[in-house]
Amino acid sequence: MLLEKYKIEEFNQAGLAEHKRRFDFAASYVKNIDEVLQKLIDFQVAIPSWALGTGGTRFGRFAGGGEPRSLEEKIEDVGLLHQLNRSSGAISLHIPWDIPQNPAAIKALAAQHGLKFDAVNSNTFQDQPDQKLSYKFGSMQHVDKAVRKQAVDHNIEVIRHGIELGSESLTVWLSDGSSFPGQLNFRKAFQNTLESLQEVYAALPDNWKMFVEYKAFEPNFYSMSVGDWGQSYLYASKLGEKAYTLVDLGHHLPNANIEQIVSLLLMEGKLGGFHFNDSKYGDDDLTVGSVKPYQLFLIFNELVEGMDARGMNHATDLGWMIDASHNVKDPLEDLLQSVEAIMIAYTQALLVDRKALAEAQQANDVVRCQEILQTAARTDVRAIVAEARLRSGGALQTLQAFRQLELRKALIGERGLKAVSTGL
Amino acid sequence: MLLEKYKIEEFNQAGLAEHKRRFDFAASYVKNIDEVLQKLIDFQVAIPSWALGTGGTRFGRFAGGGEPRSLEEKIEDVGLLHQLNRSSGAISLHIPWDIPQNPAAIKALAAQHGLKFDAVNSNTFQDQPDQKLSYKFGSMQHVDKAVRKQAVDHNIEVIRHGIELGSESLTVWLSDGSSFPGQLNFRKAFQNTLESLQEVYAALPDNWKMFVEYKAFEPNFYSMSVGDWGQSYLYASKLGEKAYTLVDLGHHLPNANIEQIVSLLLMEGKLGGFHFNDSKYGDDDLTVGSVKPYQLFLIFNELVEGMDARGMNHATDLGWMIDASHNVKDPLEDLLQSVEAIMIAYTQALLVDRKALAEAQQANDVVRCQEILQTAARTDVRAIVAEARLRSGGALQTLQAFRQLELRKALIGERGLKAVSTGL
Amino acid sequence: MLLEKYKIEEFNQAGLAEHKRRFDFAASYVKNIDEVLQKLIDFQVAIPSWALGTGGTRFGRFAGGGEPRSLEEKIEDVGLLHQLNRSSGAISLHIPWDIPQNPAAIKALAAQHGLKFDAVNSNTFQDQPDQKLSYKFGSMQHVDKAVRKQAVDHNIEVIRHGIELGSESLTVWLSDGSSFPGQLNFRKAFQNTLESLQEVYAALPDNWKMFVEYKAFEPNFYSMSVGDWGQSYLYASKLGEKAYTLVDLGHHLPNANIEQIVSLLLMEGKLGGFHFNDSKYGDDDLTVGSVKPYQLFLIFNELVEGMDARGMNHATDLGWMIDASHNVKDPLEDLLQSVEAIMIAYTQALLVDRKALAEAQQANDVVRCQEILQTAARTDVRAIVAEARLRSGGALQTLQAFRQLELRKALIGERGLKAVSTGL
Amino acid sequence: MLLEKYKIEEFNQAGLAEHKRRFDFAASYVKNIDEVLQKLIDFQVAIPSWALGTGGTRFGRFAGGGEPRSLEEKIEDVGLLHQLNRSSGAISLHIPWDIPQNPAAIKALAAQHGLKFDAVNSNTFQDQPDQKLSYKFGSMQHVDKAVRKQAVDHNIEVIRHGIELGSESLTVWLSDGSSFPGQLNFRKAFQNTLESLQEVYAALPDNWKMFVEYKAFEPNFYSMSVGDWGQSYLYASKLGEKAYTLVDLGHHLPNANIEQIVSLLLMEGKLGGFHFNDSKYGDDDLTVGSVKPYQLFLIFNELVEGMDARGMNHATDLGWMIDASHNVKDPLEDLLQSVEAIMIAYTQALLVDRKALAEAQQANDVVRCQEILQTAARTDVRAIVAEARLRSGGALQTLQAFRQLELRKALIGERGLKAVSTGL
Repeated sequence: MLLEKYKIEEFNQAGLAEHKRRFDFAASYVKNIDEVLQKLIDFQVAIPSWALGTGGTRFGRFAGGGEPRSLEEKIEDVGLLHQLNRSSGAISLHIPWDIPQNPAAIKALAAQHGLKFDAVNSNTFQDQPDQKLSYKFGSMQHVDKAVRKQAVDHNIEVIRHGIELGSESLTVWLSDGSSFPGQLNFRKAFQNTLESLQEVYAALPDNWKMFVEYKAFEPNFYSMSVGDWGQSYLYASKLGEKAYTLVDLGHHLPNANIEQIVSLLLMEGKLGGFHFNDSKYGDDDLTVGSVKPYQLFLIFNELVEGMDARGMNHATDLGWMIDASHNVKDPLEDLLQSVEAIMIAYTQALLVDRKALAEAQQANDVVRCQEILQTAARTDVRAIVAEARLRSGGALQTLQAFRQLELRKALIGERGLKAVSTGL
Repeated sequence: MLLEKYKIEEFNQAGLAEHKRRFDFAASYVKNIDEVLQKLIDFQVAIPSWALGTGGTRFGRFAGGGEPRSLEEKIEDVGLLHQLNRSSGAISLHIPWDIPQNPAAIKALAAQHGLKFDAVNSNTFQDQPDQKLSYKFGSMQHVDKAVRKQAVDHNIEVIRHGIELGSESLTVWLSDGSSFPGQLNFRKAFQNTLESLQEVYAALPDNWKMFVEYKAFEPNFYSMSVGDWGQSYLYASKLGEKAYTLVDLGHHLPNANIEQIVSLLLMEGKLGGFHFNDSKYGDDDLTVGSVKPYQLFLIFNELVEGMDARGMNHATDLGWMIDASHNVKDPLEDLLQSVEAIMIAYTQALLVDRKALAEAQQANDVVRCQEILQTAARTDVRAIVAEARLRSGGALQTLQAFRQLELRKALIGERGLKAVSTGL
Repeated sequence: MLLEKYKIEEFNQAGLAEHKRRFDFAASYVKNIDEVLQKLIDFQVAIPSWALGTGGTRFGRFAGGGEPRSLEEKIEDVGLLHQLNRSSGAISLHIPWDIPQNPAAIKALAAQHGLKFDAVNSNTFQDQPDQKLSYKFGSMQHVDKAVRKQAVDHNIEVIRHGIELGSESLTVWLSDGSSFPGQLNFRKAFQNTLESLQEVYAALPDNWKMFVEYKAFEPNFYSMSVGDWGQSYLYASKLGEKAYTLVDLGHHLPNANIEQIVSLLLMEGKLGGFHFNDSKYGDDDLTVGSVKPYQLFLIFNELVEGMDARGMNHATDLGWMIDASHNVKDPLEDLLQSVEAIMIAYTQALLVDRKALAEAQQANDVVRCQEILQTAARTDVRAIVAEARLRSGGALQTLQAFRQLELRKALIGERGLKAVSTGL
Repeated sequence: MLLEKYKIEEFNQAGLAEHKRRFDFAASYVKNIDEVLQKLIDFQVAIPSWALGTGGTRFGRFAGGGEPRSLEEKIEDVGLLHQLNRSSGAISLHIPWDIPQNPAAIKALAAQHGLKFDAVNSNTFQDQPDQKLSYKFGSMQHVDKAVRKQAVDHNIEVIRHGIELGSESLTVWLSDGSSFPGQLNFRKAFQNTLESLQEVYAALPDNWKMFVEYKAFEPNFYSMSVGDWGQSYLYASKLGEKAYTLVDLGHHLPNANIEQIVSLLLMEGKLGGFHFNDSKYGDDDLTVGSVKPYQLFLIFNELVEGMDARGMNHATDLGWMIDASHNVKDPLEDLLQSVEAIMIAYTQALLVDRKALAEAQQANDVVRCQEILQTAARTDVRAIVAEARLRSGGALQTLQAFRQLELRKALIGERGLKAVSTGL
């Protein structure tokens, strides 16, 4: 489905005067407003192919309608998002759910929608119908070398698919671990995992990165073999300079200070990228910014500070991706809300008075430090985000446009009410 | 499948001398050993029909083999467990997964295996293929009266099935809640839920109990409409004297003191029953006693103390049930381990010197209080549990018997490697 | 110390034009702006007398300077805060730390500063030098009737002090509980506590309220005898209609949904009041809104909705108090930040489009529900809060005024650098 | 106070027959019983000098009586423990609380009691009366180089004291961190801390170890500058081969898998030692094994496996220490319970059938893996621990001996009821 450009323009036209009033007010307090806008325009968050359908839990799944039935339709969905927000210019594929049968055609289709292929994702946490050996007891950690080899081969195949599409990174999330005390020898599990990762790493093209994602629990409920940032860091540092840690916001123990982890990984040059979502209890995979928006701001505050300190490019030097599950919302609406929350947090982080903050920190003026952060976080930056979208051809309000233009209705018209996408 | 009695006897014969040595030693330290043994013999833990197959998570499920394909085979499985441990003399059905087509025949089959029908369980957390209205946004809490009515009607149907089989209690677990701030009006959700429960309660036979189960999170990740013991207590006290709270060990926030909750609910006469399992992070549904066996002992310590204080019958006045998910273990082996852990904790609780404990508490002798509990918990009571089993015709060691007699192999022979049971 | 009014006026004058620009913009989006402003003007948050000095932890305390050395100076400090923010028009005393020697004079002094006396607080968690029996093993829960009586008598004495000053509520926070399994009989501890509370309740004047505060842990580390809202509710409902639950934001297990608790307690007519603070790990007693401002907003969202549903007066029908510990900040600056955060969250909650929210909830439009809340929470309401302050004679920016007017310096001049206040 | 040897012998004599019966039974199931006993005899747990008095919380402290008033009396207390259990043959000093005025005399006194000096502990989390600069905003992380230098100098002084007494390790626990978002630049705080640690490291004798302890929270409530094992590992690996991570059981986020951390640190050769205690909520500093004894066993299971895999000496290659706070118990009784719990867990870990476990792990026989661990943990090993004590001259039951011999009464007689020791 292609959304005609004029429809967005019409939508914007109706709200333009009000937007201008809000933007002018907001911009009047931002000295480097054009610089900020340019950064927002450049910032792109990849959409995972598995997040375009309704998600579920082990207790059930309540599908919506009009979900993409093929890789092509998934690309179209992301294209639609990107048309609306101009910030979703990349798609992240999951193999084997999204194996491109004709890579050249897929690549062309994506280009048509202005999309790049972000990190490719392997899957060794499920058994596929035709699979020789089972991952019931792990994949890269497995006590059986043959299972490990199967997992390694799969990852290498994923890299191959990625190369064909122009991806430049591989995300490895392992569900490996144990559910009961005694089940694993932790040390051997680590060493097996490391050895497997090394074999995959050896197959990595020179210009690629490997992201080693960690997770505290689920689907294993006693230990995870890449369980926290410390373990991911150990793997990444042993693997080499193309290996990095990937932070998923929902993969921590209760009360973890994620922003500190981000800062330290940046310091060590080992932060690779992000899986954005939100959560209250565990890997709840909720809409970004829906539960703890201030934490999201604090994370972006560290990202901006830490990337600037290393002279990194905000838009390109880390991998930005959403990883959420849309159980009770329309997936596309949910993703629009997530991207909006990310852009707001990023903008607020850009507004932090860094010089004043550094001075207050140096003076141990804790009260002032807090004021400086809160000043940025209490600022209403929605109009600034909207302006960046406007300048890059997107919709002033993405969710409202999606609804007003009845895009889901159109998708259901095309695909039917019973279309169910792959994903969690 | 029926296990011939002589096979258990043969198995026991081989270990009898060693058992006698161990039991005599253990018994020599227990003054009222016969009383303890009788209590152990009387104590029965119901097996849920959905726990006889391999469970899974949202990330996947790795089936085993020889799983029961029908309600009849589920009953046979529980019968097998009961033959081995003589403590699994009841089965708890889940509707609609286990609707008995011919209740009389099912009842007869169960009786043949020495099994009773424990609480029946309703399911309004999934949509069934033929269902008119969806539970996507809740069931008993739903803003739409028609959905609530559907949920109420389903529960009343479950009661009807239960009556036919001789059950005397209904367990209501609601996944109702919200995943995002703002989604629900908490008060109205509570009131809708209460009203729905009241309609079900009105349909409850006089000799029945209704168990209102609470859960802190999952599958809703922001709020649950029966989220903690306080909420369950509110519902139960408003419903009436046939309504009780049901405690599932995995349904709490981190670090909750479950044993205190148990004690207070007993004090209020509102504890109805238990779902046993173990967990480290959330509702992990692990084998009972596999992660926190001392907590299990502490819970039994409160149960024994509190039930005795009210003159309750340990075996019959509360509902005892396992509720676990067997993702990486043979379900029957897992259940044997769970029942064993329960019997051990119960035995140790029976060994607590209550008089000395009361005295130490009265004297604020904290050191001694701890000693008294630890003395019981450090005692090796396995031979006592085994003796109770022996006296009631079970196997000295249940897991070893299951393996030595190659029972899973026999089940696979009958049912095939691809048999997959319903459940989570 | 009295701050001359003209100084605040001078301070405001300098920022008035800029404020007007901001306020006019903000107000243009709020239809009932005058109603909102009036509510903000009416809303008063009590300051606890023990929060005027530097707090500490068991690991140490790093005092600041110029802390109040007497009850009189504490009243002066609160008066100063109130002069600046016009929202701190009450003080909450802690007995025995703040026993008024001359109640009439103290009352007059408070009146001079425009202050009322909020809830009085008893202390049975520490032994006082001249105390006959120790609270080492609890107070109202104690196995020894004499200790319980001492605790009851103390609370009655606190009420007497409160009456003299014009207080109308008693807050009972009990540190009672146990640090080791076995130490307590939970049931008897509950019953002893209840009996003690009943004796205090009997001494409560007719127009008084009793607030029963709960806390999950600390200083007892195994169980607390008023450990969660469910327990507090049990006590309060058994005590009678003058007894209520008091919610302290830091007194919960990890990940608790406090806003739901608030809503349900309001529904039951049993919410009595609040202790505001913020926390990441436990009872961290941090500045309100410094860690989880969105949660604070969500709580106020429930408060506004729930109080309106019952026709309650926002300003007077619940007890509002800060309870924080200022370990690394100037206590007065910290309190100014806390009150500001409360006023912001309250304002945002007032801006929630309740009609639209109710409709979206009724339609299960989860996306829209979230949008409605986020719209309010993303609005910059600081100018509205400032306008309310301006209209009631306070400072446009309280913290800046405090600093610019060099008030701490003046206090140190009066009281010295080594003045150390009582408190935690 | 010196306990005459004959008194212990008399005490033992009375229980000898019963002990022999129990021990013979237990030993009959342990093939390498003598080897196990020798390991138990060799195993020594250091007692921290600050744990000999009653501890407290920020809410209060309820002292007992007869607490040691000087370093000499602290040594006597540890000597007493060691006489009773023969497993407390070391003391760990805290500077400046225990600065030895006459090191030679102190060393001689310790030797007289059979005690060695374990790790020395620095204190930069409190300000001392005569201290030039304050640690209010951190010590080794401090933005002011002069404060960092003061902290470094203090640590070097601690080393000097340690050298005089024969210590061979320094434990550095830093309370450094921040209580509010924005307060710290995490990266600079890390780098300052690292630089400070490097300066201390440079002053470390060749045969010394430096233990870098981590802690998740408290007394800082937003971030800690050595907050988790990953951070400690980073410091230790940058510092050099004499630097190690120290694990305190109470210093983790909720639900952390400590045993896995232990295993991985051992794998990396970076585990230095332990602070034993138990906890339910945070750094509760409860008696070892009083809340989660199975976790303690699982940790020892990893320690034994991991140390054996590296050919390490259980008794000497890691630092073993208790770090607890005795708020409601007699400190010496509490310590006796703690050491007993440690010895029991260690013994059970020694009884794990390692060969069978390795085979079961290799076969993914999760059920059997669990059985093997549970078999060890369900074994009553108290008589084995007692036998080890008996053979090395200690008391069969240490707590009972302490009470029967009325040792606290004797200490009070010597020191008075009001003696209060330094500590937390």
